[in-house]
Amino acid sequence: MVAIIITIIWGLLRARGVAVELRQTGHGGERWAWGALKERMGFRQSAATLAMGRHTVLLLLLAFLTLREVIPVPLALRALSNLHRSASFTSRPAVPTKYTVHYLQQKVDHFGFTTDKTFKQRYLLADEHWKKDDGSILFYTGNEGDIVWFCNNTDSRYLNYLTSEQALADFAVLIKYLKRTIPGAKNQPVIALGGSYGGMLAAWFRMKYPHMVVGALAASAPIWHFGNLVPCGVFMKIVTEDFRKSGPNCSETIHNSWGAITRLARTGSGLHWLSEALHLCTPLRNSQDVQHLKGWISETWINLAMVDYPYESNFLQPLPAWPIKVVCKYLNNPSLSDAQLLENIFQALNIYYNYSGQARCLNISETTTSNLGTQGWSYQACTEMVMPFCTNGIDDMFEPRSWNFREYSDDCFKQWGVRPRPTWITTVYGGRNISSHSNIVFSNGELDPWSGGGVTKDITDTLVAITIPEGAHHLDLRARNAFDPTTVLLARSLEVRHMKQWIRDFYASQRKKH
Amino acid sequence: MVAIIITIIWGLLRARGVAVELRQTGHGGERWAWGALKERMGFRQSAATLAMGRHTVLLLLLAFLTLREVIPVPLALRALSNLHRSASFTSRPAVPTKYTVHYLQQKVDHFGFTTDKTFKQRYLLADEHWKKDDGSILFYTGNEGDIVWFCNNTDSRYLNYLTSEQALADFAVLIKYLKRTIPGAKNQPVIALGGSYGGMLAAWFRMKYPHMVVGALAASAPIWHFGNLVPCGVFMKIVTEDFRKSGPNCSETIHNSWGAITRLARTGSGLHWLSEALHLCTPLRNSQDVQHLKGWISETWINLAMVDYPYESNFLQPLPAWPIKVVCKYLNNPSLSDAQLLENIFQALNIYYNYSGQARCLNISETTTSNLGTQGWSYQACTEMVMPFCTNGIDDMFEPRSWNFREYSDDCFKQWGVRPRPTWITTVYGGRNISSHSNIVFSNGELDPWSGGGVTKDITDTLVAITIPEGAHHLDLRARNAFDPTTVLLARSLEVRHMKQWIRDFYASQRKKH
Repeated sequence: MVAIIITIIWGLLRARGVAVELRQTGHGGERWAWGALKERMGFRQSAATLAMGRHTVLLLLLAFLTLREVIPVPLALRALSNLHRSASFTSRPAVPTKYTVHYLQQKVDHFGFTTDKTFKQRYLLADEHWKKDDGSILFYTGNEGDIVWFCNNTDSRYLNYLTSEQALADFAVLIKYLKRTIPGAKNQPVIALGGSYGGMLAAWFRMKYPHMVVGALAASAPIWHFGNLVPCGVFMKIVTEDFRKSGPNCSETIHNSWGAITRLARTGSGLHWLSEALHLCTPLRNSQDVQHLKGWISETWINLAMVDYPYESNFLQPLPAWPIKVVCKYLNNPSLSDAQLLENIFQALNIYYNYSGQARCLNISETTTSNLGTQGWSYQACTEMVMPFCTNGIDDMFEPRSWNFREYSDDCFKQWGVRPRPTWITTVYGGRNISSHSNIVFSNGELDPWSGGGVTKDITDTLVAITIPEGAHHLDLRARNAFDPTTVLLARSLEVRHMKQWIRDFYASQRKKH
Repeated sequence: MVAIIITIIWGLLRARGVAVELRQTGHGGERWAWGALKERMGFRQSAATLAMGRHTVLLLLLAFLTLREVIPVPLALRALSNLHRSASFTSRPAVPTKYTVHYLQQKVDHFGFTTDKTFKQRYLLADEHWKKDDGSILFYTGNEGDIVWFCNNTDSRYLNYLTSEQALADFAVLIKYLKRTIPGAKNQPVIALGGSYGGMLAAWFRMKYPHMVVGALAASAPIWHFGNLVPCGVFMKIVTEDFRKSGPNCSETIHNSWGAITRLARTGSGLHWLSEALHLCTPLRNSQDVQHLKGWISETWINLAMVDYPYESNFLQPLPAWPIKVVCKYLNNPSLSDAQLLENIFQALNIYYNYSGQARCLNISETTTSNLGTQGWSYQACTEMVMPFCTNGIDDMFEPRSWNFREYSDDCFKQWGVRPRPTWITTVYGGRNISSHSNIVFSNGELDPWSGGGVTKDITDTLVAITIPEGAHHLDLRARNAFDPTTVLLARSLEVRHMKQWIRDFYASQRKKH
């Protein structure tokens, strides 16, 4: 999960995940406090081979501004379309000095002319190892990430310009600008890459602006999690499968926990007991709180499925290697009494929220402390990014909840004053009918619930799927690690091979022209 | 020149040239009063072969509303970017009854969500000869054309949504809707086709929405008349060449006429004489009027170059076959006195404006009677469609005028309150770097001044250029005519061959899937 940030200087919002990274050192020993950077480092390291082998240098573009602590936000199932609730980082921002920071004045609206307003798009440039003329450029397409507001009184009508199409247009304008202004960059091939929402942006950028990038690596990009392209239950089914495989009776225990909570919550003393047993910072008072609790627990399991990495990681919360396995150790008996079962659930939650042992209580009420990053995505989910989710309690371990677009739409209207357009993304980006495009690698980890909406089979020779059986959410973009499973090493080397091919093809066609 | 019309019912403007035609009769004998239809008939006739041969039926989509008489609008050279000043029709509207008229509620803004307003997009559907299931669909992409306002007090801020991107999005939504609602259409291949601006839309539609159309025929589409992709003088050079080739001393005579006008206009009596000699409806009073006169005459030559067809036609004005040749008969002596030369110029103009012999005087002041169709394009030329034009009086027969973007931009700001973005079209549609796309036929007539900004050489095996040496502005889309030069017959048959191939490829890939 890469949280990249676009900052809006001019009092307007545009959560456009241009990410600009500027160097391509391959020092595996370097440590970055910033998760996002750290993740991309993984890619840079694998991509470094490419750079060395071909005397190319990676110019990876990261338009971000600042990192801020992001608090886990419990959300109801409908808000699952927040791809990156877990994409927040507890670590402090760290911008390596070898990255230079730049700004580009971007039009607020590329597709309309009534407003000529601009905003300053920030990006980082790492050209330390970059080679002029016959090199190449990696353009990191960022994410929905956090939005840092420089102006608190930003006019919310500018949310209107917070769309994927505007983001792609930003990318195009930025690349054109960079090629014009950086000597030696003019005739170099550019490759787009990104993960999650950024992966969708990378793929869509290649589809819509193939004249700008010779190819794209779209990691864990659920481009088919729209309309009825995939069953709405696929996401939660994969989450469940991750738990089922990680320990005996694990998913069954979770499945049974919902009823246990319901039963315990029937009385005041039960509510009190639950609040104590789960070490909640704020006691549960009513059934609404209980629903909230269930949503918050569900999200925890989802988050764990996304970050079920083979080594310790410090996303959202510091986590052990294969965290679901660790969690499942406490969830091996579905037949206990309600109270015993919930005590085990607490132990499991505690792994996620208190691996470091610092937390005094578990806080499920953070939704109110909405941060703008999450809000940006919430707006996008209420406009273009309508991803249907559902559960049935049979194929998954959650309480049944159908996909109710009407309710979803009403909630959106209440929150943002907009109505989602659920068919637009497939209309504009083609849905499953994308075979006329080329040079996109779609990578997916099979543990990653987002893989359910991803491209996991080759479409053509140049629209290629790479699956990583032991991979969670874009593990391939993360830093190289001694505990990386062989499958992710293979995936990375395949990705690099494709990128090399795109670059070779590009230079070959250039030579043909001259 | 096909003028297709989108009507705005809900008080907002969107000059989106969706054109919906619905039948595919091949009756060469049918006559349509409406020029646009007549033109498309030509295509339908040639395409009819396709329909018969493959048991396909053409479902050609025309979103238009009403035709209104359009008055020739003299404009200064900067407004040359009005592709279709000459695209107006003196004939009355005639909508054949075999076309059924339909409406689709379209979002005013596909790319923003603040406004959820819709407008009724009107289209025609001709399914008389259409075959279900294994047939195919022709989607005519219309033009900038005239806009008929149903609501006179339309809010001009909706001009903001008058862009090519919104038009393409309209097409996509309409096609998706048609496929969903017309039984048997769901799995049929759609081919986009259009001429002039509509040709650009057809090409861009295939580039941006390849999942919607299997290919596009872009006739006389100057997709490279932007930025510095072609010299700004190319258009007027071709106009000049048309006159040079059409009669001895013809272009030279026109070249000399400007000085003659200037000299005559120096005195009041000269102005009076000029007004009489040219039979102007309103006498010339000052140098501004004289400039206006020159612009109006220049446009006449340009229009003639665009409609220099090999047979009588009744565009803007009824015209003889090869009208430039007829005109040039009066323009064979560049060495006459100023007065004699201008008398000959009048004879030439009279061919264009008074072939029918009905006109009592020549009216050069029609710019003020601006019609909304022209205004729509004027707005587009002031936003996205920035086409640089210039003359130098050496390579062309016009008075020298450089391309002055600053002045152009200032004029736009005065007229519309917007600033043009001259680099946007190449950023969004790729400029010359379009080789990764496929299945587009670009046809150009060599007599057509717009061919200078067109694709006249093959780019790849599937991005094909067809040139028609004796063709003016998309002659290939016009009705079959006994006087059609062999080259246009050949062009049409090549176009059909490509379309057949796209359809075959589509059905082959469908079969492979199942």
